[in-house]
Amino acid sequence: MTLVVQKYGGSSLADAESIKRVARRIVETRRAGNDVCVVVSAMGDTTDELIDLAQQVSPLPPLREMDMLLTAGERISMALVAMSITTLGHTAQSFTGSQAGLITDEAHGRAKIIEVTPGRIRAALDEGHIAIVAGFQGVSKDTKNITTLGRGGSDTTAIALASALEADVCEIYTDVDGVFTADPRIVPSACRLEEISTEEMLEMAACGAKILHLRCVEYARRFGITIHVRSSFSNRPGTLILDRPNEGEENVEAPIISGVAHDRSEAKITVVGVHDSPGKAADIFRVLAESGVNLDMIVQNVSAVESGRTDISLTLPKTDGQVAAKALDRVREEVGFESIRYDDQIGKLSLVGAGMRSNPGVSATFFKALSDANINIEMISTSEIRISVITRGDQLDDAVRAVHSAFGLDSSEGEAVVYGGTGR
Amino acid sequence: MTLVVQKYGGSSLADAESIKRVARRIVETRRAGNDVCVVVSAMGDTTDELIDLAQQVSPLPPLREMDMLLTAGERISMALVAMSITTLGHTAQSFTGSQAGLITDEAHGRAKIIEVTPGRIRAALDEGHIAIVAGFQGVSKDTKNITTLGRGGSDTTAIALASALEADVCEIYTDVDGVFTADPRIVPSACRLEEISTEEMLEMAACGAKILHLRCVEYARRFGITIHVRSSFSNRPGTLILDRPNEGEENVEAPIISGVAHDRSEAKITVVGVHDSPGKAADIFRVLAESGVNLDMIVQNVSAVESGRTDISLTLPKTDGQVAAKALDRVREEVGFESIRYDDQIGKLSLVGAGMRSNPGVSATFFKALSDANINIEMISTSEIRISVITRGDQLDDAVRAVHSAFGLDSSEGEAVVYGGTGR
Repeated sequence: MTLVVQKYGGSSLADAESIKRVARRIVETRRAGNDVCVVVSAMGDTTDELIDLAQQVSPLPPLREMDMLLTAGERISMALVAMSITTLGHTAQSFTGSQAGLITDEAHGRAKIIEVTPGRIRAALDEGHIAIVAGFQGVSKDTKNITTLGRGGSDTTAIALASALEADVCEIYTDVDGVFTADPRIVPSACRLEEISTEEMLEMAACGAKILHLRCVEYARRFGITIHVRSSFSNRPGTLILDRPNEGEENVEAPIISGVAHDRSEAKITVVGVHDSPGKAADIFRVLAESGVNLDMIVQNVSAVESGRTDISLTLPKTDGQVAAKALDRVREEVGFESIRYDDQIGKLSLVGAGMRSNPGVSATFFKALSDANINIEMISTSEIRISVITRGDQLDDAVRAVHSAFGLDSSEGEAVVYGGTGR
Repeated sequence: MTLVVQKYGGSSLADAESIKRVARRIVETRRAGNDVCVVVSAMGDTTDELIDLAQQVSPLPPLREMDMLLTAGERISMALVAMSITTLGHTAQSFTGSQAGLITDEAHGRAKIIEVTPGRIRAALDEGHIAIVAGFQGVSKDTKNITTLGRGGSDTTAIALASALEADVCEIYTDVDGVFTADPRIVPSACRLEEISTEEMLEMAACGAKILHLRCVEYARRFGITIHVRSSFSNRPGTLILDRPNEGEENVEAPIISGVAHDRSEAKITVVGVHDSPGKAADIFRVLAESGVNLDMIVQNVSAVESGRTDISLTLPKTDGQVAAKALDRVREEVGFESIRYDDQIGKLSLVGAGMRSNPGVSATFFKALSDANINIEMISTSEIRISVITRGDQLDDAVRAVHSAFGLDSSEGEAVVYGGTGR
């Protein structure tokens, strides 16, 4: 018997009617002859409401108690899903993260999974039950405190369970039909990808594609889990995320380009007038690392020979921006630079595709498309299968549409399969 | 250091402001030099809202899942109370019933506590934390499923923890000032008792006094726990419920009468025309026992000699009434009786007091008071320290006031201590 792990997010569980619809879908999967283990998020706005309550009683709630509070959300949704399944003539049992064997470290609010011991889930499945598991939560190995996994937590729970249970597929249900070549709100002609490699999906997620959190894709790749991203509001197939390394070199029919991702969540810091002598850049990055910020792109401009000074630009999440700027300001004299410029009106555009490796014309097409659209490029960063640029924030949408179109990703039907074309 | 266990009900935890008020009270107790372990119910209407959600997805929710759902309520309130305490400069840690060591049987929705292993609570107290525990819930011994304790569950959790931790006192906070000589809504001159024996409180609870569930008082009596029932909305002392057997015989100053309880939750069934031969009554009670109903009072009238038939009347909770009537109707011919009369327009009045034992005039005063007030008595039942009668439902309030007054329990100040008087 095949084993399917399914994950339903909060938007698929907004109210009683949504829960009943999800229950019907779960039962269909069971009746098709599969064992089914389901991971659920909290219903709709539950988590926000709980956070609001916490802020009413405490300006800075202790993280241990915040985790205790928030985990009530999945407890409610999982019990309701289990009940709803029972009315359809199947039996279901719900399990907390702790009961499901999600063992984590002690980092409340952003715990990492250390191991998964799903003995109770295995037993429930073997007894013929559908198992419902609370996403986003676990129990710490040493102190046995309740923890939450932080962003992307429920997806990560599903993938971790799929791995531990050796499931055949992990279906991530969401409110869109799958992974698209670009955000359909910006590019209406964007089309759904039938499949994408975990490697490409990693780059897409890292570059702002919201559909799956980077962390889940990393987890899936590490353990070789096939993810099927699909909509809980339709029966259409979604996007398969497959572990197929170097696919671009083995399959000449595969698309060169997977898609265009964009991201408005970053800010740019420019450290102006750094002494162009050994160790100065290292000082700057040491200070930033000590303040705990996550850097993304880093660019050092060519040194102005006459002054012996240079500028270093970097991007980072806007949420880390103030911390980073303050940390740098404190060491201005010590490190020896002139000033700091902070800019949060930027956008980041990334073109992702495993086929780039063997198609040298990609970057030429990319930069010509941006140039033709009068987009000014402020920073550039590349990997083997990705090109990213920083633009003005208000030019980002135009840039996405220009690049999407230049690589022949536009589809008049909106559902065509993408074969990227001619290696321009 | 003394150890105080406190329990706060849902009405004391209705919203963020109430939670902050409860947190201040807890911290005051801690600052007075006590270790403090707090048991909380779910906030205000949370439980009702969760039940409503369950009914929207399932007409008959599985009990295991219902327990999983409802236990989210205490999880939310305990985390918020712990957070609120932290803002007052003390540390608090919250624990689920399972974490607190409340081990129960497998009876979902009405689980009984088998043992309490409060190792984590003890450790938290020893580390200087205030421990907050979810009331009403536990974990089953064999299957490790989450259970709820049913009615009076949070009070029972508090008393069980007080016993296991060898606490000095168990304070039950509610929205009234303590135990009164009668329900102040019916008898405005009713007064608060400074103390009452567990034996008397047992009879009061069994006879409809809502302030503590029968089960909690039984638990407290068995383990010799002193309960202090008091209001979370004032700083006035409440009522001490003490384990002092035969107090009436040892302390001549103690009140003869503790109070007048009333109950509108019962119905009366009369089995008419039962053959007055051996075994017939036994048949009737066997049938009722098999249908799982709880009987309260039972009266068999004198047999009418000429017919050889008699009537048997009994009272039981209205919620069991239909089941009992149907069960009896099915065996009418087999057992041999004429008909069944069902009456849910009755009231029950009980006079409770350990001093009755040594004061033979009590029943004479009691029946004279009812007679003077023109109350018709339909059934009578007595124990060593209680007299109960069934009246018409619409005469119950008048009956309570008449008896309360006849025993000198009325207080013009509303707070006078009750010394019942002269042994009339």
